Amino acid sequence: MKIVVLAGGVGGARLAFGFYRMLPPGDLGIVVNTGDDFEHLGLHISPDLDTVTYTLAGLANRDTGWGVANDTFQALAALERLGGPSWFRLGDRDLATHLQRTALLSGGLRLTEATARICEALGVYAPILPMTDDPVATKLVTDEGKLDFQDYFVRRRCQPVVREVRFAGVEEAMPSREVLAALREADGVVIAPSNPFVSVEPILAVRGVREIVASKPAIAVSPIVGGQALKGPAAKMLGELGLEVSPLGVAGRYTGVITGFVMDQRDESLADGVSSLGLEVAVRQTIMRSDEDRVTLAQDCIELLSRLGA
Amino acid sequence: MKIVVLAGGVGGARLAFGFYRMLPPGDLGIVVNTGDDFEHLGLHISPDLDTVTYTLAGLANRDTGWGVANDTFQALAALERLGGPSWFRLGDRDLATHLQRTALLSGGLRLTEATARICEALGVYAPILPMTDDPVATKLVTDEGKLDFQDYFVRRRCQPVVREVRFAGVEEAMPSREVLAALREADGVVIAPSNPFVSVEPILAVRGVREIVASKPAIAVSPIVGGQALKGPAAKMLGELGLEVSPLGVAGRYTGVITGFVMDQRDESLADGVSSLGLEVAVRQTIMRSDEDRVTLAQDCIELLSRLGA
Repeated sequence: MKIVVLAGGVGGARLAFGFYRMLPPGDLGIVVNTGDDFEHLGLHISPDLDTVTYTLAGLANRDTGWGVANDTFQALAALERLGGPSWFRLGDRDLATHLQRTALLSGGLRLTEATARICEALGVYAPILPMTDDPVATKLVTDEGKLDFQDYFVRRRCQPVVREVRFAGVEEAMPSREVLAALREADGVVIAPSNPFVSVEPILAVRGVREIVASKPAIAVSPIVGGQALKGPAAKMLGELGLEVSPLGVAGRYTGVITGFVMDQRDESLADGVSSLGLEVAVRQTIMRSDEDRVTLAQDCIELLSRLGA
Repeated sequence: MKIVVLAGGVGGARLAFGFYRMLPPGDLGIVVNTGDDFEHLGLHISPDLDTVTYTLAGLANRDTGWGVANDTFQALAALERLGGPSWFRLGDRDLATHLQRTALLSGGLRLTEATARICEALGVYAPILPMTDDPVATKLVTDEGKLDFQDYFVRRRCQPVVREVRFAGVEEAMPSREVLAALREADGVVIAPSNPFVSVEPILAVRGVREIVASKPAIAVSPIVGGQALKGPAAKMLGELGLEVSPLGVAGRYTGVITGFVMDQRDESLADGVSSLGLEVAVRQTIMRSDEDRVTLAQDCIELLSRLGA
């Protein structure tokens, strides 16, 4: 079964890793959010692409979820001494990725091609595909005004109250031919347990993507378990945007796109509610603590997709 | 006595350090070669500015002469793994300087201003002045064709035979107002024991600089001792360009600009020859092994400049 995973950062990367371990080469494509991409110190930084790449390469820092395991921060400390910005935590090894990506882009490669080069160098054989090669920037309209994603996420630590999420540039952005091909060839699509508003919806907002996904057997895994997000501000945003802070709130956000939904055992009491949205529901253990958890959840997703005809 | 030192990399930095230690604040300006500057991985790298800055800040690697002492190379190792270029040895702390300089330049500062910011952050109070804020690129016409400076110096390890040295862009380059002011206020100018062809002559080639220096009491310190350069390809280049590989060859290169010359005791037998070029000669211990050697040589320079009316 050919699967495309739509992924943001940490949660998306962990589930993508599960599929990467269990599917034969050629059967997995991972389409990654680039709405968080930004330029910093002249470097093109793609946080979600890096998290997915490092995770699949076995290099990710398992504690933080982002960055490279056992990275050092000599450059950042020196930069701080020079009066440079230190709010974005650039590890020395991580910095190399940004330098190399920026150099490849300056050399004329598309982001998709630059990402492929980096993956190849790190021995990652599954295609990790930026949702678009065009610039899209997630902006948050908050009670403190309009904020760039990294401003909100890193500098303001997700504290402002979010009123609306916008994807600047997305109207002009085209999906790459690689994304289109992967989606068209897919037997099923899995929306990873990533933040619906700032990780998944930017991908769905790229021209044509929502429609292709909706035309396939497609499922989502809830990033909300027991009323909380495992990582990041998904729960807080659900509440601020007036939605229920539960798998129900998430599933409601994806109606019209998905036909199946995987939610955690802890939320079993909500399964009927999710079913009543017209979704095929699988109640499973969705918290991925170990590599085995990741593979098991990927298998659960495939099982649900099978039920949906994939 | 107000002194301006014209400096390239290692030798220039060491003598500049001697003056920095002995002169009161405000009496020293250091004009530094930027002909070696280049862009690498999107970063603006100024090797000679960095060497002088690190040396005055007490951060320089005393073994290599370049880079930061005890620097680590995590980013470079990771970059190499990613298939990026590793021929230019970027330390992690050193990298921060290039990132910060590049960011300051992107923000609209002149190189002079960016350098001042970096110096201020590192506690260096003497003005370290790029010879110009305009782009000048040293090119070497060699038996292997025309080479960019870093290609010749780092990648080809100075092996090609040099036929000619050119400074691309120097006709259009203007000295900064800071360089002009420092030179005009100087009582004396000291050409450091740097490579005449690729460190000092680019500075002298910037519009008006040679004339101002020639109008002042000005001396040079020989970078050649006992037929050898203490660092770099100065001796090799002297030979390849058909000049005597000795203080005489160096002094001859500066006639019309300097009126005094400091040469090493080991070359005492050549002092009369140098005198016969019309130069006031001081034969001294010029090899700077310790901080004290640097200060002593700076004092020797001031003594010679005094004899010349500075």
